[in-house]
Amino acid sequence: MTKQAVWLWYPGDFEIHQGMLQNFKREERGMGWPAYWYIDDCHRNVKFSRQYTLTATTSFTVYAQGTGYVDVNGTKHQLGHPIICDAGTTTITIFVGNPTALPAIYIEGAVIQSDQGWQASNFITTLPAGHDVLFTDKSQNPNVIVYHRQPVIAKNVTAVDDGVLFDFGRAVNGSVIVNLNRTAPITLCYGESETEARDVAMCYYKQNDVTGTTKVRKRAFRYIFVPAAQVGEVELTAMHEYIPKKNTSMFKSNNQLINQIWNVSTETLNLCSDLFFIDGIKRDRWIWAGDAYQANFMNEYSFFDEDIDKRTLLALRGQDDIKQHIDTIVDYSMLWVIGVLNHYQMTGDKEFLKTIYPKLESMVQYFVAQTNEKGFIYGRENDWIFVDWSEIDKTGTVAAEQILLLEVYKTILACGQVLGESVTEYQTKYDQLLANIMTYFWDDEKGAFIDSYESGKRHVTRHANIFAILFDVVDAQKQQSILKHVLLNDEITQLTTPYFKFFEQDALCKLGQQQRVYQVLLDYWGGMLDRGAVTFWEEFDPKQHGKEMYAMYGDPYGKSLCHAWGASPIYLLGRHFLGLRATQPGYAAFEIEPHLAAFDQLHAVLPVKNGTVTFDKADGQLEITASRDGGTVIVDGQRQVLGAGKTVTVKA
Amino acid sequence: MTKQAVWLWYPGDFEIHQGMLQNFKREERGMGWPAYWYIDDCHRNVKFSRQYTLTATTSFTVYAQGTGYVDVNGTKHQLGHPIICDAGTTTITIFVGNPTALPAIYIEGAVIQSDQGWQASNFITTLPAGHDVLFTDKSQNPNVIVYHRQPVIAKNVTAVDDGVLFDFGRAVNGSVIVNLNRTAPITLCYGESETEARDVAMCYYKQNDVTGTTKVRKRAFRYIFVPAAQVGEVELTAMHEYIPKKNTSMFKSNNQLINQIWNVSTETLNLCSDLFFIDGIKRDRWIWAGDAYQANFMNEYSFFDEDIDKRTLLALRGQDDIKQHIDTIVDYSMLWVIGVLNHYQMTGDKEFLKTIYPKLESMVQYFVAQTNEKGFIYGRENDWIFVDWSEIDKTGTVAAEQILLLEVYKTILACGQVLGESVTEYQTKYDQLLANIMTYFWDDEKGAFIDSYESGKRHVTRHANIFAILFDVVDAQKQQSILKHVLLNDEITQLTTPYFKFFEQDALCKLGQQQRVYQVLLDYWGGMLDRGAVTFWEEFDPKQHGKEMYAMYGDPYGKSLCHAWGASPIYLLGRHFLGLRATQPGYAAFEIEPHLAAFDQLHAVLPVKNGTVTFDKADGQLEITASRDGGTVIVDGQRQVLGAGKTVTVKA
Repeated sequence: MTKQAVWLWYPGDFEIHQGMLQNFKREERGMGWPAYWYIDDCHRNVKFSRQYTLTATTSFTVYAQGTGYVDVNGTKHQLGHPIICDAGTTTITIFVGNPTALPAIYIEGAVIQSDQGWQASNFITTLPAGHDVLFTDKSQNPNVIVYHRQPVIAKNVTAVDDGVLFDFGRAVNGSVIVNLNRTAPITLCYGESETEARDVAMCYYKQNDVTGTTKVRKRAFRYIFVPAAQVGEVELTAMHEYIPKKNTSMFKSNNQLINQIWNVSTETLNLCSDLFFIDGIKRDRWIWAGDAYQANFMNEYSFFDEDIDKRTLLALRGQDDIKQHIDTIVDYSMLWVIGVLNHYQMTGDKEFLKTIYPKLESMVQYFVAQTNEKGFIYGRENDWIFVDWSEIDKTGTVAAEQILLLEVYKTILACGQVLGESVTEYQTKYDQLLANIMTYFWDDEKGAFIDSYESGKRHVTRHANIFAILFDVVDAQKQQSILKHVLLNDEITQLTTPYFKFFEQDALCKLGQQQRVYQVLLDYWGGMLDRGAVTFWEEFDPKQHGKEMYAMYGDPYGKSLCHAWGASPIYLLGRHFLGLRATQPGYAAFEIEPHLAAFDQLHAVLPVKNGTVTFDKADGQLEITASRDGGTVIVDGQRQVLGAGKTVTVKA
Repeated sequence: MTKQAVWLWYPGDFEIHQGMLQNFKREERGMGWPAYWYIDDCHRNVKFSRQYTLTATTSFTVYAQGTGYVDVNGTKHQLGHPIICDAGTTTITIFVGNPTALPAIYIEGAVIQSDQGWQASNFITTLPAGHDVLFTDKSQNPNVIVYHRQPVIAKNVTAVDDGVLFDFGRAVNGSVIVNLNRTAPITLCYGESETEARDVAMCYYKQNDVTGTTKVRKRAFRYIFVPAAQVGEVELTAMHEYIPKKNTSMFKSNNQLINQIWNVSTETLNLCSDLFFIDGIKRDRWIWAGDAYQANFMNEYSFFDEDIDKRTLLALRGQDDIKQHIDTIVDYSMLWVIGVLNHYQMTGDKEFLKTIYPKLESMVQYFVAQTNEKGFIYGRENDWIFVDWSEIDKTGTVAAEQILLLEVYKTILACGQVLGESVTEYQTKYDQLLANIMTYFWDDEKGAFIDSYESGKRHVTRHANIFAILFDVVDAQKQQSILKHVLLNDEITQLTTPYFKFFEQDALCKLGQQQRVYQVLLDYWGGMLDRGAVTFWEEFDPKQHGKEMYAMYGDPYGKSLCHAWGASPIYLLGRHFLGLRATQPGYAAFEIEPHLAAFDQLHAVLPVKNGTVTFDKADGQLEITASRDGGTVIVDGQRQVLGAGKTVTVKA
């Protein structure tokens, strides 16, 4: 809600346009790599309108990104010049076209200004105009993202391999200022690792013929190696670019390793989220729905940045018409839908829910159109039934997709009810689907869901079973069966991707396996820190050492060393160890059920909507304080109300 | 068909992108005026692909508008660098993203080049890549239209109103080079008429603070007035911009006025068509489907420029999804469909028909979705049932729209049959619609079609009746009834727009009323020449004189004085006096049935596909010569074959 003037546009257009630009930012060895799916752009022309009942003469000026004019009661006026309106009913319509960027307006005036109440039309649909917290000033241009810049001086400059290696000591996402004390131009070889930077032939990013005046492209790196140079000839200052975020969260315990895991996780998530949640800062730099779905959970327990959430959801979904699944992946489309519910649960933002609901419903209808007579969703030509990089039996319809579809129906039911929309049809679909899932995919003998019932192979993987835990598809007895027969069963192929490990750790904690997950934190994330990680990686295999650690997808430096999903300890610690969760949208009610046996001493702060919850543990006592009402502390089944500014003390 | 390398893009994207830019070029008194309907843009990312079976090693280089890379058999390569391919099967995929303009490629190589055979995909649909005759060279950029420039020196420079008036003697569409012999900047006041240019306050275009280095915007004008200046202080050279077109047509007779009408018509059409058929060069500069439909007929009898036709059809239709009717007008959407058939009839271009057919069919389906149980098309909310600026009874479904829909069905039947598509359903729809039109809209007592049967008013206007003649909806007896009761009946409200007068003159000629039309040519178009017209106007009322001649739409200079439909004498003379028409697609067969009694002497040339027909009349003898086979000369019902290079002589 804004009462001040802000830049306005057709709702979603800013996010869709910037999302397109984001998905075009990938670079690999001198090649641009625009995302390989259908990508929408913003509208090219938009009509803004509003009616005022003026009690006195007033004046206003319309500034626009684009070409156009202002119509006041049928008379045309120029942009950028003051327009005087007499008292009475005044209808203002502003037409703006922009052939290359976002059409947007800013209106300055005492009464008439670009605050809430303006409608925007794409000439088909008229909706409340969109805006963003980043663009509130006339002097701004919503087509130019102004990043804050932070100079980073190299921590170490060393002569190696007949060149100079700069170690900036941290992951930088930005440009480089080059100062040469020689005439010959230089080559910049970048690396997230030292190994990569020094690999002049194969490093992922490289820029040749650089002089002091060359424009150096924005890239992500920790190291830069300048071959054929001597220390003193070359001075490099990295310019890290970022959009500042608030972070009220904190985690300090007697376990320094866990503290460091928390901090590096926060750094990782922070780097992977400026305008949007992207997968990684070096590679792909794309907005993937599956990655963003997870980043949302981590964000809730650290930055609590509602804006990045919203921008990401809007950018992923694109314009009204659905041309293909998000990122081409059926399950990602479904995670997008479920992500809308997660965002609503986190924020209670009914306004945003209203804005996105039509796109939510059309997405759900898109799924319904590809279900069979049993209500099972199937992949069509060019649909990617991904689930995970694992050996999953994908014959016919696949279990994991059906369980996601169940949660999709729960989402539209929940969101539709909030908005008073008619959604009962989805309850029927939910009931049918649930019954058929249990009939066709639940295997009593295996005590688990099988991937496919059509193949006859009765193959069990972790994926569908994990989703079933997370989305409350099965009762306590079946949960335990899944825990025993799948999650804790070494004969079931282990997950190989951190993407799905996130879901697995979440499910394990949900089933009370915090102790196991604690060990995973120490081993997996602690293992990366052992290797000198300053941000968490896309993937980590403790068995790998040296150069092989950096390879992925058949590329020696294909692995991203600052990857959003690497930040999942934030969520695991916040949700399952500190034990905080919203039980009503926007934390109108929330519960804290701590599992902090692993920590002797602890001081932690977590955000909640419009507030924080603080945890202090010492001497077997845990003090929990909340800055807002709505909390309940649960320990050993005992519930205690946690009022605003009050402290509840429990044994822990 | 091209064998040389050309620039390639996703089919339709060049036209849609440039069409968007065209529709954003309107200017009025310092205001931009982007078109007020939904406007598509090109895709932002495109994948080009092709497979070669190479017999030897070869090399190629890909140039692109945008960012991206080249994949050869799974290995990525940079744009702009030579890539070497070994003999064998080679699959090449090129990804290009362009966030602000048209993604396009040009491939240079001995074997592998961007000639015919490349596919382009928007990641949803894969089609043969698009190209344009204007972009055949590596050094070009299909995002930059390079206009030819022709300096135009003022014919008269006179001191008036304390300023200087420049009369360039012709309509210029371009910029101005300013040379000042004083320090103070000047103001440029433009006019298609002298009256407008000298009206410093109200002229349509004006540019203030112009010095010798100011960039002067491209505008259309004949006159420029510089107020508060003296002759000698200011030198202006107009730079007319155009894309050269071939014109093999010619019309020279003993009637100088008709000759001048032909020439000024040709000039008018030429100015209103560079990349696209636009309505007028000063105002709106937009691509209107109704105007373009008519321009296509004039083009066929003068420039025979297939490219402008194709570009205009593609730009008007936009991307696959239909968001609203073309220009928001239901009848314009239908004229667009019929225009596709006209273009095919003119060119026989099956390749283009194949490209556009999916968009043709979806457009027809869009109409079908808004027909009622009688098969009548009705307007939905936000649909504009235009027909014409006339008092038409638009209660319920409207006759003129139904007759257009009949021709729409004929179009899809004809085009579908050419391509072997299944279209029989449309025959059923056609039959039902025709029967219901005759039942509900034909009024025996009135001997004509009524506008609306639902209102009970039985109001007759010319529009539906004219369409019924043009589209052969009624038999000879009813044709004569319409001629008598409508076209030649002064009690039926006269048409007020040149837009519909075009259809009326066409219908009158079709019914043998050339003599009347000849008089209209002399009075209406001759009347404009009497007023000093150098191009034909949007509208002309012989009763108006002085300043009032230039007013339209409530604006003192709202009338466009160079308007495409003003060029209709080209068509009327070519089609109905010289009497040429294609009877098979692409002039595989054509007929010439001359009506040249009004001319004693005449030398005329008309284009046909891949050729010309020449007419020479003197001493009551008419010699008709064709440069290609397929012609038949018809005089008094007698048919004579006209072979290539042969002359048929008839009495005339």
